[in-house]
Amino acid sequence: MVKKHTGKLFRVAFKDTGVVGIVEQGATVFDAAKKAGVYINSLCGGDGLCGKCRVNVEDGRVTMRSNTFLEDNEVEQGEVVACLAQIESDIIVSIPEESSLQSRPAFDEEETEELHAEFGGKERYPINPLYQKRRLELPHPSIDDNLSDYERLKRELSRKSGISIASAELSALRRLPHILRKSDYKVMTTAVFRDVDFELIDVDENDGEPRNYGVACDIGTTTIMAYLVDLDTGRICGSAAVYNAQMHYGEDVISRIVYIQENSNGLNELNGLVVGDINSLIETLSVRFGIQQDSIGYIVCTGNTIMTHILLGITPEYIRREPYIPVVATPSMVPARDIGISINDSGYAGFLPSLGAFVGSDISAAVLSSSMADSEEISLLIDVGTNGEIVLGCKDWFICCSASAGPAFEGAGTACGMRASTGAIEKVSIAVDGSIILGIIGGKNRKPSGICGTGYIDLISELFTAGFLDRTGRFNRDSGLDRIREGENGVEFLLASSAESQSSKEIVVTENDIRTLIRTKGSIYTAAEAVIRHMGLSWTDVESVIISGGFGNVINTRHAIVIGLLPDLAPEKFHYIGNGSITGAKMSLMSVEALHASRAIAEQMTYFDLSTDPLYMNEFTSSLFLPHTDVEKFPSVVCRSV
Amino acid sequence: MVKKHTGKLFRVAFKDTGVVGIVEQGATVFDAAKKAGVYINSLCGGDGLCGKCRVNVEDGRVTMRSNTFLEDNEVEQGEVVACLAQIESDIIVSIPEESSLQSRPAFDEEETEELHAEFGGKERYPINPLYQKRRLELPHPSIDDNLSDYERLKRELSRKSGISIASAELSALRRLPHILRKSDYKVMTTAVFRDVDFELIDVDENDGEPRNYGVACDIGTTTIMAYLVDLDTGRICGSAAVYNAQMHYGEDVISRIVYIQENSNGLNELNGLVVGDINSLIETLSVRFGIQQDSIGYIVCTGNTIMTHILLGITPEYIRREPYIPVVATPSMVPARDIGISINDSGYAGFLPSLGAFVGSDISAAVLSSSMADSEEISLLIDVGTNGEIVLGCKDWFICCSASAGPAFEGAGTACGMRASTGAIEKVSIAVDGSIILGIIGGKNRKPSGICGTGYIDLISELFTAGFLDRTGRFNRDSGLDRIREGENGVEFLLASSAESQSSKEIVVTENDIRTLIRTKGSIYTAAEAVIRHMGLSWTDVESVIISGGFGNVINTRHAIVIGLLPDLAPEKFHYIGNGSITGAKMSLMSVEALHASRAIAEQMTYFDLSTDPLYMNEFTSSLFLPHTDVEKFPSVVCRSV
Repeated sequence: MVKKHTGKLFRVAFKDTGVVGIVEQGATVFDAAKKAGVYINSLCGGDGLCGKCRVNVEDGRVTMRSNTFLEDNEVEQGEVVACLAQIESDIIVSIPEESSLQSRPAFDEEETEELHAEFGGKERYPINPLYQKRRLELPHPSIDDNLSDYERLKRELSRKSGISIASAELSALRRLPHILRKSDYKVMTTAVFRDVDFELIDVDENDGEPRNYGVACDIGTTTIMAYLVDLDTGRICGSAAVYNAQMHYGEDVISRIVYIQENSNGLNELNGLVVGDINSLIETLSVRFGIQQDSIGYIVCTGNTIMTHILLGITPEYIRREPYIPVVATPSMVPARDIGISINDSGYAGFLPSLGAFVGSDISAAVLSSSMADSEEISLLIDVGTNGEIVLGCKDWFICCSASAGPAFEGAGTACGMRASTGAIEKVSIAVDGSIILGIIGGKNRKPSGICGTGYIDLISELFTAGFLDRTGRFNRDSGLDRIREGENGVEFLLASSAESQSSKEIVVTENDIRTLIRTKGSIYTAAEAVIRHMGLSWTDVESVIISGGFGNVINTRHAIVIGLLPDLAPEKFHYIGNGSITGAKMSLMSVEALHASRAIAEQMTYFDLSTDPLYMNEFTSSLFLPHTDVEKFPSVVCRSV
Repeated sequence: MVKKHTGKLFRVAFKDTGVVGIVEQGATVFDAAKKAGVYINSLCGGDGLCGKCRVNVEDGRVTMRSNTFLEDNEVEQGEVVACLAQIESDIIVSIPEESSLQSRPAFDEEETEELHAEFGGKERYPINPLYQKRRLELPHPSIDDNLSDYERLKRELSRKSGISIASAELSALRRLPHILRKSDYKVMTTAVFRDVDFELIDVDENDGEPRNYGVACDIGTTTIMAYLVDLDTGRICGSAAVYNAQMHYGEDVISRIVYIQENSNGLNELNGLVVGDINSLIETLSVRFGIQQDSIGYIVCTGNTIMTHILLGITPEYIRREPYIPVVATPSMVPARDIGISINDSGYAGFLPSLGAFVGSDISAAVLSSSMADSEEISLLIDVGTNGEIVLGCKDWFICCSASAGPAFEGAGTACGMRASTGAIEKVSIAVDGSIILGIIGGKNRKPSGICGTGYIDLISELFTAGFLDRTGRFNRDSGLDRIREGENGVEFLLASSAESQSSKEIVVTENDIRTLIRTKGSIYTAAEAVIRHMGLSWTDVESVIISGGFGNVINTRHAIVIGLLPDLAPEKFHYIGNGSITGAKMSLMSVEALHASRAIAEQMTYFDLSTDPLYMNEFTSSLFLPHTDVEKFPSVVCRSV
């Protein structure tokens, strides 16, 4: 039966994008944007629950379903919640900066140089990349040295480049005899690392420089980031990042799984989006650095288990139901073209091992990049993302778990939260007189748009230390400070007035926000403590605490201790490694030995399910104080602030 | 520029085949047959040199190019040499039995049973086939046993079937989670051996019996033979053989290489023919044994190096020129569909290692099947084919060489030679009074069509022993025997009169034939002796002589000693293993361990180029006597016949 169009059709123009969509009467603005490929922020995936997808209708009519998100003046100004606004005529929509998914490079040229210095110079593993193009001169065959062409090439490649070839693509074998004789036995060989050994995939005449690049890609639930890497030197040419286009379908992985379960083509749709995102990053980097996409031979991807499944076109639906089982932990290398990735047609895509349903290959990569596995001392890795992942261990053993922390430190689920991108408040200091100084990403003179994870850590710590916030997370209503006031949603603290903010909207932190953030920090801290206790250890046994994640450029560990996110240990024990996922991906791209090390990490790993820990819920409840119910756990904090 | 048809077009009907071809004026009957896919015997590949491609033109006009092949009465009867006969009108052609490429199964049902008893029962390697379908019940996942689907399947497959999986096809991974849950964790898994490890290629619901077959295929220059093998038991269900359709392009490998060099599409053409032959064998066997081609998962091919190259679409042209270099000795396993082989779409084709330019994987297979590699005693393997290949060695070392013996023992290059198929004289005994008894393949009462390899060995030995042939290969003109007479091509011996023969043509052996056969036996014997000498050994060091090849059903070793083909050793030292190539292919198909053993054989092998042996030519010349110039080499023969 053919479905009839019963409603009228309307045009929806998205201002400043050049995009115009056609939708049926009754569709929402959010539907229209999704259909047209225009990004609008959303936490709930368009279910009318989060109120994040605010846009302005500049012309035309919409009907708003009843909601509590909008104030009267906002409605008057044409502001709507996109997923609740049904289109009733042709309309023009503008998307404010807070609701748009800006795309920005993760760092600029200067930062790239720093990265190079940081990661390129001091690799712990030999340069032995997964894709190797080698110029090779073979001795001419003779009656006395009459090895076959392929076996001769294997022998010389092993002798001269240490590459041990186990198999060959038929197409390469077919070209080999002609190329060898045409080039007088001087050839360019291309070999890729499959799951166990190298495979010869190409042989060509030896003309010009080998152009030889790879991509390391971290597929975050929120952000997808890629490095373009020179495979001959390990140098990071540059990086790029885009927001994960799956954000349309909800900001957390669970809403994406739900979408896949409820839509027969859902997996294909989300797969197409992530493949499209990765391809756009590859294109961006290729154009920016003037290389052919064809000269990119390998991509190593890391990400949480759900993202990896979706990229491979494998359903993640069973991860959501007890007993939370992924389909695959360590996928085989696949020809990149088989999953739609636009690099060299003979190129491959490789993956690091996932560690469990909710501890993905981003974490095995972070462990790899952290050097934890090289040390006999016990380290704790805390990765702060949508979930908080914890890894405890040393060179002989590892245990990991995932705490469903929520995305508060990623800027979601709070009144004025945003990701650590341009315009975010990333640093806050507050004096006892209530005067405040803000650090903004993108420059001092920039007006803030919202607050990112590290900003919230600073803010709560400073409010608490200055006495404006009590141990339960309630504002001190007797402070006499104007910034503490009754807002629409309860008591709040004003960080920037509408005049001071980029969007002309006040930037505040509410008691609700504080409660959410305390739950987040509590769940991460309690998870770490649960793992340590599970191993019969205590905090004093932990020699090093490694913090990983993209929630800010730097983390003020003192402030993180004050709020009880990090344990009260000596400052020198803390190390912030930034995005350990992409660093580990890049290390594995550059070294078979590093890839093997990541597999060894996965082999040694025990996955600990917090829901099986009888003490966890009690401990979690105790952590919902600043810094903790049990103040003896934080002696340095208690001294200052009680 | 478009080539114009300038000549007239004629119809060429091939009688009893149902095939009618259309050709231009000026084309030969041989051209017409090739174009229409009708087989006509040819030694020279249609170059007008051998006169083997005789057919009868029953209606219509042809112009014969001048030649010495046909006698007047033959011309009168409409007999033509197909490659010299230009078509001048519509014609009807009939192809006599001697010129047609009969297709016959290598052995009938009873023989299949024998084969089963011989090879199926006493394998030296464990049953561990390259393609394994296994029914598997997995424990349900739980919080305590929360391994991913794929890793769970790997674990259970290793535990319960000993199959160690190193990688998985993406398509199998994509299906896996659904199949597991739909089937309540009872599944059928399919794994194939790649070059180093097993790959999971399929997973299915566990319904019904696994149907699980493989094919072992020996690609001879002349004959292509296949076994259908039950992979669960190792039982050979049956076999089939066809003549290699490349015979159109010459009977030896060199003429095929020349064709490839001289025709831009030559490699594709010959590749298409061998692929077509293999597919027709697979179809024949599938139909005969009532199985789906889909249930065949693996094919292991053996053959000389040139045949293997052509099957893989790799040019063999450089093998022909000094220093005689193949492109590849051990090709990687390839998806069968990539080379056009019609088995299961996920099925693979595998290869045994070649040992040199003119010692192919048929010989590594023969060595594997001979048990030479299991023994500390020194054995000599002689494979009699278009070339004579020699392998000397024991469990610790091997050396091999190839003697360009020519195809005389395969029935080519002699007046009345034919392959060891129905109607061939395979046994001869001659009394001193000149009375003869012939053994014919296909039954006692059958009229002979020609003489196969073992028939020639018997014939020369018996003529020599009875005193009708002297040590130089000349007939005794004073014997008074009617059968020895002056023929068209010199002195000859009559084996069967025109009344006694199937084709109503006399069957004779000429002095030219004897000379050719002596050269052939001499080159094989001398090559064997050269290898032994090269290793500093003598015949007395050889504990066992293994004879391999399809030149007859049995070989009379005593007769082979008498003519100087085999050395004069004690009878119990000789072992005839038949077609060692296909036996070795079947062993490797059935056992990863056997495949590894064949690779170990290749690793231990030294390839000895006879052209580098300074003594070889002298020794060869000395061997051109019956049994040898140096009679002391054959003491038992000399006693009887000097």
